[in-house]
Amino acid sequence: MLSVWLVLVSCMDFLLYSSAEEGLEFPSFDGKDRVLNVNERNYKKALKKYDMMCLLFHEPLPSDKELQQQFHMREMVLEDRCTECILTESCDLCPLGLEEEGSIYVFKDERVIEFDGELSADTLVEFLLDLLEDPVELISNPMEQRAFERMDEDIRLIGYFKGENSEHYKAFQVTAEKFQPYVKFFATFDKGVAKQLTLKMNEIDFYEPFMDEPVTIPDKPNTEEEIVDFVNQHRRPTLRKLRAEDMFETWEDDMDGIHIVAFAEEEDPDGYEFLEILKEVARDNTKNPDLSIVWIDPDEFPLLTTYWEKTFKVDLFRPQIGVVNVTDADSVWLNMPNDEALPSAEELEDWIEDVLSGKVNTEDDDDDDDDDDDDDIDDDSSDEDHYGDDDDDDD
Amino acid sequence: MLSVWLVLVSCMDFLLYSSAEEGLEFPSFDGKDRVLNVNERNYKKALKKYDMMCLLFHEPLPSDKELQQQFHMREMVLEDRCTECILTESCDLCPLGLEEEGSIYVFKDERVIEFDGELSADTLVEFLLDLLEDPVELISNPMEQRAFERMDEDIRLIGYFKGENSEHYKAFQVTAEKFQPYVKFFATFDKGVAKQLTLKMNEIDFYEPFMDEPVTIPDKPNTEEEIVDFVNQHRRPTLRKLRAEDMFETWEDDMDGIHIVAFAEEEDPDGYEFLEILKEVARDNTKNPDLSIVWIDPDEFPLLTTYWEKTFKVDLFRPQIGVVNVTDADSVWLNMPNDEALPSAEELEDWIEDVLSGKVNTEDDDDDDDDDDDDDIDDDSSDEDHYGDDDDDDD
Repeated sequence: MLSVWLVLVSCMDFLLYSSAEEGLEFPSFDGKDRVLNVNERNYKKALKKYDMMCLLFHEPLPSDKELQQQFHMREMVLEDRCTECILTESCDLCPLGLEEEGSIYVFKDERVIEFDGELSADTLVEFLLDLLEDPVELISNPMEQRAFERMDEDIRLIGYFKGENSEHYKAFQVTAEKFQPYVKFFATFDKGVAKQLTLKMNEIDFYEPFMDEPVTIPDKPNTEEEIVDFVNQHRRPTLRKLRAEDMFETWEDDMDGIHIVAFAEEEDPDGYEFLEILKEVARDNTKNPDLSIVWIDPDEFPLLTTYWEKTFKVDLFRPQIGVVNVTDADSVWLNMPNDEALPSAEELEDWIEDVLSGKVNTEDDDDDDDDDDDDDIDDDSSDEDHYGDDDDDDD
Repeated sequence: MLSVWLVLVSCMDFLLYSSAEEGLEFPSFDGKDRVLNVNERNYKKALKKYDMMCLLFHEPLPSDKELQQQFHMREMVLEDRCTECILTESCDLCPLGLEEEGSIYVFKDERVIEFDGELSADTLVEFLLDLLEDPVELISNPMEQRAFERMDEDIRLIGYFKGENSEHYKAFQVTAEKFQPYVKFFATFDKGVAKQLTLKMNEIDFYEPFMDEPVTIPDKPNTEEEIVDFVNQHRRPTLRKLRAEDMFETWEDDMDGIHIVAFAEEEDPDGYEFLEILKEVARDNTKNPDLSIVWIDPDEFPLLTTYWEKTFKVDLFRPQIGVVNVTDADSVWLNMPNDEALPSAEELEDWIEDVLSGKVNTEDDDDDDDDDDDDDIDDDSSDEDHYGDDDDDDD
């Protein structure tokens, strides 16, 4: 399906900052034209010239004046931010396998990587910087191993190999490039680290987010194809965190048209507590292929918070879990009357079972007597808008 | 001093997003005019009308055409993002104590809070949302206590009180509002939590970032004035993380014109290891009032990474520590030839002593035979620009 996107890649922090202090200057547009218009005739030359290039694939310029203005602003941002951003009109580059108009593609070596994240300069530049990192990070000592163990939000693989020249390590490296920057690849050549991680020579472990125990890829040593297949099969976790860098991809990967969505601020005591309960539930149900909960930390999406509160009619200043229909954004939310009444892991599991069996769903209440879909779900927060409210919860 | 800022408050994620999936729509401008021009005549009325308002204090409109355009773009963003953003021309509002032209001020209840962070919509909106949270978070059980203990990047206070009606708790609450959102305030009414935190009734502990042990505010129960004084006295930590929400304030709080700056990605094994060493050094030197190290996680400032690499001539794909002169951004960096050669805590302490004694400084090399200031410090990374480089470190 062709989504027509007309987006303004964002964050125009043009900053003419004059101060006595130096060292924190955000970039401003330097007048250098970095955006090329690419078409069927010149794209091969462009691909040869740059090690990495970033391409915005868009439809012909709109005739509407306001849209044109937005388009030019987008172009300005690309000039400001990307080293080489290349725009193309219409479908000239379809031979490259570009399908989604309005999408951003990064060309690096032989790969074409679609950027399916938040269209802000921050997120896009971070994505490009991540692509420039080594595809495999080496873990060489216990402190680095601790760092590895702390990254429990990411899908991670770690392999134990003889050294950089090992052919199995090389297969692992090639595979890593294919999944960069979405799936993290680590390796160790250190016997002590391998022992701590219970890795045998040439063995690769796959860590699902938030799980304590990894799964070992069978039949070591593994070929590139085996690793790719294994990752693709195990890629949808039981609990996944929504990340700016691939938020749209995650959202499109729904389960039969719905998402179970949990909102929880990790930096908030209630949010943290709720998240720990959620992780417990995920660990207990990791074998269930029908379950994939999307955890959203509202702190990381300040520009969406108000939109979500209005759309879902929930109060995001406290934890929430619900079912969202991705077709119409209709939703139902678990009733949690106050902060002190978080559900236990068992109660949460019962509710999730009801969701998976269809007993709890977004449609049942649509023809109810209720005028408002959500009145019975989250009474005290519906229609609440945080902007401009009195901060009176604590009195 | 009056800094003249002409900034474009950023992140114009105007998004006309049309897709089969609903639930992740970034806000677009709805046509509603939310920016008021405030002047001496109407500001009192505006202050009365809104519970919270956000004000951009700027100089009269520039005559330069390009600057005018930037100004209008800034105005558009404010309309898009803030519920009530109010612009004022020239110095009409000086009676309110506004001094820095170009700054953003938030008016909430009786307080005027200067926003001195990154001028992006993300950061500004997050700041506004943080101001709407309860000024004091309650810690009611061991899980929430764990959440509290994990927030070691922030300055935190926690007090044990009898309950919401305690006059000492109320003094604590009033103080919390004064420091919101920069300093985090927590309280517990739970005996078990208090015991775990070794808090006696009406006692308040102050946690410096990254320190294991808190300091108790003397002479409990404490008045508002005592708490304010204590926080102000202890506010500059030995190790502080640069945060988007107050980055300019932190940078302006230099130590005799310099900053000791450490770059380390927490999500990177080497960065994590380096950070742990740094924390050890900070803990050993927490009594030294002359030491305050600014830790920057480059992951959190993607738009500044290239600028820093160019300005400081360092490779930010690995950990770095150096001294930066904030007047001219001249800098010297500790020589760390490769990832496997991180300094020990002792070596780092010796280097920091040399910095504090002036033996290592940014001026000595300026008249050397070297043409390039930093050749002798970090040979293999100077003048390196990650954009467009081959990703060949791992071959």
